Amino acid sequence: MIAVLRIGHRIDRDKRVTTHVALVARAFGADIIFISTKDEKIKKNIQAVCKRFGGNFEIQTGVDNKKIIKSWKGSIVHLTMYGEELEKAVNQLDTNRDLLIIVGAEKVPPYFYQVADLNVSVGNQPHSEVAALALFLDRYTKAAWCRKQFHGNIQIVPCVKGKKVLSKETT
Amino acid sequence: MIAVLRIGHRIDRDKRVTTHVALVARAFGADIIFISTKDEKIKKNIQAVCKRFGGNFEIQTGVDNKKIIKSWKGSIVHLTMYGEELEKAVNQLDTNRDLLIIVGAEKVPPYFYQVADLNVSVGNQPHSEVAALALFLDRYTKAAWCRKQFHGNIQIVPCVKGKKVLSKETT
Repeated sequence: MIAVLRIGHRIDRDKRVTTHVALVARAFGADIIFISTKDEKIKKNIQAVCKRFGGNFEIQTGVDNKKIIKSWKGSIVHLTMYGEELEKAVNQLDTNRDLLIIVGAEKVPPYFYQVADLNVSVGNQPHSEVAALALFLDRYTKAAWCRKQFHGNIQIVPCVKGKKVLSKETT
Repeated sequence: MIAVLRIGHRIDRDKRVTTHVALVARAFGADIIFISTKDEKIKKNIQAVCKRFGGNFEIQTGVDNKKIIKSWKGSIVHLTMYGEELEKAVNQLDTNRDLLIIVGAEKVPPYFYQVADLNVSVGNQPHSEVAALALFLDRYTKAAWCRKQFHGNIQIVPCVKGKKVLSKETT
């Protein structure tokens, strides 16, 4: 199981970036996202995507960060530009264990750096937690997202020009 | 040369996501970002990052999309969940040519699908233009971002716990 823990989410300021984090978690192979702040709107949005596009992705908001971390039985990583290089870090992780990936917004308290088994950087330049999560999951799963089937009511057919959509939705 | 053209940027709604797009462009190997809407604030933010963290990344805002596209001498791709699969698309691109990568916000007018040599999808699931740009650049450059040196005044030293920063900044 791969879980993402989004900490420090501020409903107004972070709504779009956190939505991107959740969609990336789903598309690149995580099973669940926990969002620290209670946010029913984001939950509904993500659940609506899951309903249309398929898969078994879950979302929980308003969680207790420390409780989740303390009860976690697998590995814990924290994505940060200060962390260990991505390739080296991924090589140290046992993919047979469950994995919790902590993704911060803005400044992250020292607790999360300390509690993670590994702090992992996707390059040591400032960029985006959305990109960091996507690249981390890409490397950790050996690009399994390319082959993943979601069996949704809506399926997109790859297309060099235009849009091809297969839909089982009834309006 | 690799350029990113961010279209449809709405100053209030997209400021954080467009900032992430610009930072990802810089960190993953693009040379310049063009943002359709004039936005001095985002320009200053990105230039401030470049000044501190190094590299030769440029930003222009308030550009004429069609003028840039019409005068572009290299290849043009448009990132969209409806496009050709990433690996297949990258194999069709000549990396010796300049490349313009169009990145939309929300709904993209048909013109951009038509004018692109290739529409490219990073998976056919809804997720994020930030993640799509990072993964596209990763594959297109064969992960050159891992080895890229920015020679900035601030350099982060990878670290499993905590933060190590080398700074040449004077306060």
